[in-house]
Amino acid sequence: MDSLVNFDSLLELTAGILEKGYGYSPREASVTATVLAEADARGIPSHGVSRLAFYRANLDQGHCRPGSEPRIAWETPCSLLVDGNAGVGPLVAAFAAEKALAQAGRTGVSHCAVRNSNHYGIAGYWAELFAEKDMIGMAFTNTYIAGVPTFGNRRALGTNPIAVAIPVKGGGTFLLDMATTTVTHGKVELYDRRKKPMPLGWVVDERGKVITDATAFEKTFYESDLGGHLYLGGEGEESGGHKGFGLALLVELLTSGLSLGAASLFTYPEGGGGGITHFFSAMRLDLFGDPQALKSHMGGILDGIRGSGKAEGRDRIFIHGEKEAEARARAMEAGVFLDPATKAYLRDLCAASRIPLIPGL
Amino acid sequence: MDSLVNFDSLLELTAGILEKGYGYSPREASVTATVLAEADARGIPSHGVSRLAFYRANLDQGHCRPGSEPRIAWETPCSLLVDGNAGVGPLVAAFAAEKALAQAGRTGVSHCAVRNSNHYGIAGYWAELFAEKDMIGMAFTNTYIAGVPTFGNRRALGTNPIAVAIPVKGGGTFLLDMATTTVTHGKVELYDRRKKPMPLGWVVDERGKVITDATAFEKTFYESDLGGHLYLGGEGEESGGHKGFGLALLVELLTSGLSLGAASLFTYPEGGGGGITHFFSAMRLDLFGDPQALKSHMGGILDGIRGSGKAEGRDRIFIHGEKEAEARARAMEAGVFLDPATKAYLRDLCAASRIPLIPGL
Repeated sequence: MDSLVNFDSLLELTAGILEKGYGYSPREASVTATVLAEADARGIPSHGVSRLAFYRANLDQGHCRPGSEPRIAWETPCSLLVDGNAGVGPLVAAFAAEKALAQAGRTGVSHCAVRNSNHYGIAGYWAELFAEKDMIGMAFTNTYIAGVPTFGNRRALGTNPIAVAIPVKGGGTFLLDMATTTVTHGKVELYDRRKKPMPLGWVVDERGKVITDATAFEKTFYESDLGGHLYLGGEGEESGGHKGFGLALLVELLTSGLSLGAASLFTYPEGGGGGITHFFSAMRLDLFGDPQALKSHMGGILDGIRGSGKAEGRDRIFIHGEKEAEARARAMEAGVFLDPATKAYLRDLCAASRIPLIPGL
Repeated sequence: MDSLVNFDSLLELTAGILEKGYGYSPREASVTATVLAEADARGIPSHGVSRLAFYRANLDQGHCRPGSEPRIAWETPCSLLVDGNAGVGPLVAAFAAEKALAQAGRTGVSHCAVRNSNHYGIAGYWAELFAEKDMIGMAFTNTYIAGVPTFGNRRALGTNPIAVAIPVKGGGTFLLDMATTTVTHGKVELYDRRKKPMPLGWVVDERGKVITDATAFEKTFYESDLGGHLYLGGEGEESGGHKGFGLALLVELLTSGLSLGAASLFTYPEGGGGGITHFFSAMRLDLFGDPQALKSHMGGILDGIRGSGKAEGRDRIFIHGEKEAEARARAMEAGVFLDPATKAYLRDLCAASRIPLIPGL
């Protein structure tokens, strides 16, 4: 059995790597380490410390510039436009979320568009910051191109995730955090390694036709921008693929559109800067009455769903965010799981920056 | 060939039926006729004048009470809570949208939750009202129970549609208007009539297992609340069915949750009232800068998608709202298509209320 890693030790180690190895400031390192380690703790390893490799590449290629300070480029009493100045994604996101929290605290709502940022980790982490303050929080972002429009054959939009956090009584936080593509690329890589046929509706080839052979798909994926992920609902319109594509477009218009920033198609340009755009939205619960009464009512709605009839062979209906909250509680108690490849990569990074290893690594 | 019906004549006829036959006030009749006829003109007959049968049933069963006036139950500078008093759905929606438009005109944003309403027609119609005023508009609603949660076997949530309208330059309005279920019930009825097997991922049977036999499904659908529609992404989690289910839950929390109104599960109760809940959101484009520059930038993003590579055998990528806008333009020019059954139903209603027929009916 693989040994688990203490959460706080992982946090400290990751921050150390970012500071000593990547040249991040202490604040940049701390906020980035937190959002990465949180993903591992919640059972979302695709966005965990394994992303250090991607963050390294962003650094080396000039997309991410530690030390750059985000700034407010435009402001009204209920909106903010933040320019990330090609800074560290989680730092830019933390800056924007903090300003939006303060603004919504004053006026009840805040809509905040962000341009010139970088990858900010799991969207749900940012949405949840608002829910902790009795607000409904939303966090959207565009990404590098990954998905193919309905009836298209070329990648033209990101995985463009949607995250919404709503505080409820008794059930913690309803936290929907979903890529608008059917699956993320990590799932395809897994099927490639296992030589398993993918389900229909995950990806299309260079002709824009659905394929199930993950190995064939992976071979051509990095050679051009032809072929790529399908959006939620799959190929064509029969099972609603155009709806998932519409959600991705919506995210694109709210992030890149409202920030006057780069569309997914133009992220990570050769000239440097990441060009990633975000959109945050905060809405105080007391805009609609007593927050306790609202949280209680919403908790009741979710209880009704939890208690609804189960499919044959199933004994639980999961509310969004539950699996991750339970995984996090287990990880805080017993330690965080990291796969062998991620551990090996962390050990290499520690060696390069002369950082002592931690138990379990 | 079926003859088409003039849009204005259809509007007048429908308003006449609602006024003389249903006892709606002139204003209730006019706004309801508009949203129904608009659906037919846009090529969405499932929400067109054929819905008069459903509106009749709502009247007869005491769910909808013409003459009831909606009222504002709670208000802040950027939020509204409207109580529909079991009134006519489109009238309640028009009241709420008008107040939200005025509020956003003053403060930049408005979030408006509505309880005790009824069916309000196509969600997109309401979202679009905001886009016409250079705002991003959102309209959500819960509905009668139609969909089964991931890993469930019982209908527990509505089709819970999401509509978002964003004004863009050159391309009219980006209008995403989608049920969060994979398909609406009308599609299943069509497959039943044609004795065609349904695609996987549309519905589950009373055991919560996906089935493709539309006729078998229809036989048991009305006998109990077991079995029903799947949400976008289909059965289980493999292709993201839990994401579609999450979107439906999100709609439920924003509509029923924030309004302290009825969950889908408790809509259309025997005691009367419809119990339907809505949520509208308006955000002025100038919160983020010059609206013309924003619309131009967003139009450019959409042009980039339109011009992207096409799948084999396809020559067009559709932006959301385009098909409907083009259908509407054709209908305004050449007339509205109505299927024979809808025409026959309209003729019966006209005879009952002594309303003269119109050409093409």
